[in-house]
Amino acid sequence: MTLFEKIIARQIPANVVYEDDLVFAFHDIKPQAPTHVLIIPKKPVVRIGEAQAADQALLGHLMLKAGEVAKKLGLAESGYRLVINNGRDAGEAVPHLHVHILGGRALGWPPG
Amino acid sequence: MTLFEKIIARQIPANVVYEDDLVFAFHDIKPQAPTHVLIIPKKPVVRIGEAQAADQALLGHLMLKAGEVAKKLGLAESGYRLVINNGRDAGEAVPHLHVHILGGRALGWPPG
Repeated sequence: MTLFEKIIARQIPANVVYEDDLVFAFHDIKPQAPTHVLIIPKKPVVRIGEAQAADQALLGHLMLKAGEVAKKLGLAESGYRLVINNGRDAGEAVPHLHVHILGGRALGWPPG
Repeated sequence: MTLFEKIIARQIPANVVYEDDLVFAFHDIKPQAPTHVLIIPKKPVVRIGEAQAADQALLGHLMLKAGEVAKKLGLAESGYRLVINNGRDAGEAVPHLHVHILGGRALGWPPG
C-alpha cells in the first residue's frame, strides 16, 4: 500500500481539499509554492505512462477536477501550473499517479 | 486563429511527432530540455480551467497519448515531466491548451 492509498483510506492524516468517488485532493506536505495541492485518482494507477485505455474517462475526470480544485483554491485568476512526474528524471516520489497543482506565485521557466 | 491552430492546419511548419483525429504533438521551438514536445487537442480548448464536462473523453485521450508519445520519444525508462500552464503566474504563452512533455535530463524541483 503506498502512502497515497493510506491517505485515501484516512490511515494517514492529510489536509483534504476535495474528494469524490474517483479522485482525492490534498495539500502537499512539502509545498513548493504558496498553494501546492496534489490530486490523485483513487484507483492506484502507478504513473501516467502505465495508464491504460480503460483509464481514459478517469484521466479526463482527474484533469477536469484539477482545474476545478485550482478554481476553488482561488487560483483561476492569478494562474497555476499542473505537473505530473513520471520516473527517475522527473523525480517521481510516490508510485501512484498524482497531479501537482501549484500557484500563488510567479512560476519560473523551465519547469525544473 | 492561434499559433497552434495554424500549426495544426499546416499553415506554419512544425516538427510533428504524432497526430490522430483528436490530438497533435510537435517539438517545442524553444526547448527547455533535450526532448521537449507539446501535445495539444485539435479542438481549441483555451486552457485547462476552461475545459468543460463534455471535454472529459478528449482530456483523457490527451493524457494517454502524452504518455504514449513520451514512450515513442524514448523517455519511458529515463523519465519525463508533463506540464500544463494555466494563466499569468504559470507563464501560459498560447491560449490553446497544451501539455509540455520534457525529458532527456534530470528535472529540478520545484518545477519553476
